[in-house]
Amino acid sequence: MLSDIKIAQQAKMKPIMQIAEDLQINEQYVEPYGRYKCKLDHALFDSLKDKADGKLILVTAINPTPAGEGKTTTTVGLGQAMKKIGKNAIIALREPSLGPVFGIKGGAAGGGYAQVVPMEDINLHFTGDMHAITAANNLLSALVDNHLQQGNALSLDPRRILFKRCLDMNDRALRNVTIGLGGKLNGIPREDGFQITVASEIMAILCLATDLADLKERLASILVGYTYDNRPLFARDFKAEGAMTALLKDALKPNLVQTLENTPAIMHGGPFANIAHGCNSITATKLALKLADYTITEAGFGSDLGAEKFLDIKCRFGNLHPDCIVVVATIRALKYNGGVDKAHVAEENMDALKAGIKNLGAHIDNMRLYGVPVVVAINRFLTDTDEEVRFVSSYCAEKQVECAYSEVFAKGGEGGIELAETVCRVIEENAETTHFAPIYEDDTTVYEKMDAIAKKIYHAGDVSYTPAAKRAIREIESLGMGNYPVCVAKTQYSLSDDPTLLGAPEGFTLNVRDVRVNAGARFIVAYTGTIVTMPGLPKVPAAERIDVTEDGVIEGLF
Amino acid sequence: MLSDIKIAQQAKMKPIMQIAEDLQINEQYVEPYGRYKCKLDHALFDSLKDKADGKLILVTAINPTPAGEGKTTTTVGLGQAMKKIGKNAIIALREPSLGPVFGIKGGAAGGGYAQVVPMEDINLHFTGDMHAITAANNLLSALVDNHLQQGNALSLDPRRILFKRCLDMNDRALRNVTIGLGGKLNGIPREDGFQITVASEIMAILCLATDLADLKERLASILVGYTYDNRPLFARDFKAEGAMTALLKDALKPNLVQTLENTPAIMHGGPFANIAHGCNSITATKLALKLADYTITEAGFGSDLGAEKFLDIKCRFGNLHPDCIVVVATIRALKYNGGVDKAHVAEENMDALKAGIKNLGAHIDNMRLYGVPVVVAINRFLTDTDEEVRFVSSYCAEKQVECAYSEVFAKGGEGGIELAETVCRVIEENAETTHFAPIYEDDTTVYEKMDAIAKKIYHAGDVSYTPAAKRAIREIESLGMGNYPVCVAKTQYSLSDDPTLLGAPEGFTLNVRDVRVNAGARFIVAYTGTIVTMPGLPKVPAAERIDVTEDGVIEGLF
Repeated sequence: MLSDIKIAQQAKMKPIMQIAEDLQINEQYVEPYGRYKCKLDHALFDSLKDKADGKLILVTAINPTPAGEGKTTTTVGLGQAMKKIGKNAIIALREPSLGPVFGIKGGAAGGGYAQVVPMEDINLHFTGDMHAITAANNLLSALVDNHLQQGNALSLDPRRILFKRCLDMNDRALRNVTIGLGGKLNGIPREDGFQITVASEIMAILCLATDLADLKERLASILVGYTYDNRPLFARDFKAEGAMTALLKDALKPNLVQTLENTPAIMHGGPFANIAHGCNSITATKLALKLADYTITEAGFGSDLGAEKFLDIKCRFGNLHPDCIVVVATIRALKYNGGVDKAHVAEENMDALKAGIKNLGAHIDNMRLYGVPVVVAINRFLTDTDEEVRFVSSYCAEKQVECAYSEVFAKGGEGGIELAETVCRVIEENAETTHFAPIYEDDTTVYEKMDAIAKKIYHAGDVSYTPAAKRAIREIESLGMGNYPVCVAKTQYSLSDDPTLLGAPEGFTLNVRDVRVNAGARFIVAYTGTIVTMPGLPKVPAAERIDVTEDGVIEGLF
Repeated sequence: MLSDIKIAQQAKMKPIMQIAEDLQINEQYVEPYGRYKCKLDHALFDSLKDKADGKLILVTAINPTPAGEGKTTTTVGLGQAMKKIGKNAIIALREPSLGPVFGIKGGAAGGGYAQVVPMEDINLHFTGDMHAITAANNLLSALVDNHLQQGNALSLDPRRILFKRCLDMNDRALRNVTIGLGGKLNGIPREDGFQITVASEIMAILCLATDLADLKERLASILVGYTYDNRPLFARDFKAEGAMTALLKDALKPNLVQTLENTPAIMHGGPFANIAHGCNSITATKLALKLADYTITEAGFGSDLGAEKFLDIKCRFGNLHPDCIVVVATIRALKYNGGVDKAHVAEENMDALKAGIKNLGAHIDNMRLYGVPVVVAINRFLTDTDEEVRFVSSYCAEKQVECAYSEVFAKGGEGGIELAETVCRVIEENAETTHFAPIYEDDTTVYEKMDAIAKKIYHAGDVSYTPAAKRAIREIESLGMGNYPVCVAKTQYSLSDDPTLLGAPEGFTLNVRDVRVNAGARFIVAYTGTIVTMPGLPKVPAAERIDVTEDGVIEGLF
């Protein structure tokens, strides 16, 4: 089979104006970026706001393994398959970060014959949203450091600045830095650090803001730090929100692209799910619901991360009600979860499969807590044996969960027809009984919310807090923000906070190391384990393989 | 009169596809970015390469003062005026950096009724070129620090890394930083610094590269630093050039926009002239010469900086031959140069004008050294008195230089007709005698080139070098790069390296503090005085005034 980038480069794309027209979008709302990408103006949503919403399908997965699960591929393939069975569907994805593109992962627009295109553009600068977020973030930092330099009229304590700089890059050397060195003309020395842009609060704000006014209000509310006498200072105290909003004005508009089979795809916002809230923007999802009968969206990593945050944070803020949750798994990844080494996941191993399927079971159980019907999607590989497939089917039957097999990587939409039909049938059959509800209530404490997430979703026995975390929670409570939803930063590799615990660990103690409030995003971030908000590059970065021919053709993106 | 941004927002823009069509550009070469911006594919130049070039007009100025000179405004107005007198003209400008937009200067797309539009887009993210440069720059840095972390197989000495990170932001606190702090997992601690993106070598490379292959070769040749045993290491040693080229692939394509009066304007590349080489890209200028009979371009700050570098660096590399040089001045700025305080430049003061006009005289003399006819453009203010105007006219007559008055700020193209007619006449009258030549030859030493620039252009008596500068020159010579052109980093406020010496200082000693080779850009940077490559924000940054209404209208950009 051809490489992903070769398949993508052979795609027969329709002009993006045509994709928009097929969605009955008047061209006045379309801002082209080249021939195959565009932004959609906010006024489009306003023009559609009296139209009924379509159905919302969330695609999530088991814990990621080196064996691969293909969640984005399944999401894209499901969107393509919907067209094959005569349904009017749209996909709503996150946009990729440059960090993984140059690091390990490569592109993030699906794979095989289930991809979003133009793949190279999407994986590089796309329409500039990431760069706009980086610029807005670093403008606030520059204004804050300039305030210190120009006399510090607000008495900001340089030892207690919480807001960090960011870059859309995997760059561990920037995690901890000292800035302002070199004497009087060159700033006030202090400790600082860079996060990857997708972990920035600005990214979260962009994804949660409902319009420009809400965006500006949230930006103004970012907690920058504290004064020497312990008063909080916000972005508005530095008069930063107007210029930051100007930088983000276009980034707030959802981007429209297409799949290899010309299914429309909105890609907008891209927080990682391990270090941030992990789903695309509320504006994009709400717009998608107006544009098609079925909106298929995804949330990052396993259901313990992206889906939990989608359901407890994004749906809460956006007043969204999913109609079906698809949990993606591969038989290879289940065997890996059962203890098989990556090198041997292609070999039949019923013992490993029986052990590892508990991971799938835990994710199914978790998703059922939200009152929404669940479908298991097994992303098939040629190496899956009949006995393995039979076992998975009977496991699902026993759990009374629908299960469908998908071959969209190799076959495109054609390979997802069983899955698409299952999803549509499950939505219809459960329409009366589906009653989505988040797993915790608004007016509970940080401790109560952490308990709900840790015990119900991660299956922890207990939650411990460092003294720093407890102190931070007290401070957040004293700001009147103690009842915000909680966004957990946690490893994606395990249901627990220990990346080496595969399968379905239970009864462990989850350790909360630090807690921060994203006062503009209006959620609380709890940092567990050793997760960091600026990834590093591997020994051989993917960047080394990427090249451009003299004719401008990009190579090695996968 | 309305503010610049109000005038810009009332502009009757043509769709950019129409502007392209008016230039007889086939739509296959046009990549729209919204309705009023586009990029032009490299293949367009190839399709035109047998066509004769039009005339090339360089607009430069006296030393900038707080009183304002309006060089960009005059450039844009001259382009608009050309249309009024029936000439087919195009403008070729630099694209603005976000640093000054949020700092002191505000926008950089002309002013009054001589502006390039859409002004807000151009002054914010435009088509993303700056962000692409920032990303490519910081990818190289991330790869270098990752190499140190992963075992440092190349034996790179972390104390001798020359290549710095960058951000498109005025942020003095990032000038000198220590990175890689926090222990074993977080990188190798070392000193580093951030430059503003427009000072990055990548910006220079983008502006000097002739095509994608040349771009990649230049990126590969960036000198990153030295090994412990003193061998040079280049970007190619870190396998960085392919991915960097991928990031810059679209940024290499010139951007097309329009003026308030629908004159086509190519804006591409934007190095500052005080800390970098100060002119737009070679690809943009060469393309413009194919598209119109007259190309009007500008170079940053006074003629001692931008024009010198345009003529000695850009024209040398791009094999360009300017046909006319326009030196812009205002009577107010000349009085400021004669010692009048900014608060009083609007009052008639013949003594100050007589003293300050020496600055104009020096710039005229300098430009005549290049064998190209010179025209003085006086950008008129309402406060200029008849006696002042008469004096400037007779001064120019005495120097036997053509002088024209321009009122394009208040009147648009209509206000530039005298200037346009003068320029066209001067080009025609001198067509036979114009023989452009740079002021120094290729095969001279760094010292000889510095001498030529310092003595002929700055009017210095002597040049001194710190021991560090001399050592750096020896190293550059040992790399075989000692004959590259020299790009001087120097204050824009004086012909000398002391910003307080106004008028026409002579006989001073120019102090070269440090020297670096931009091995990919293929020029040598000499740092003089106290000029730094990362500006700071002022006490009250322009960012504080910038805002966005609920309807998405940007305010306060000026």
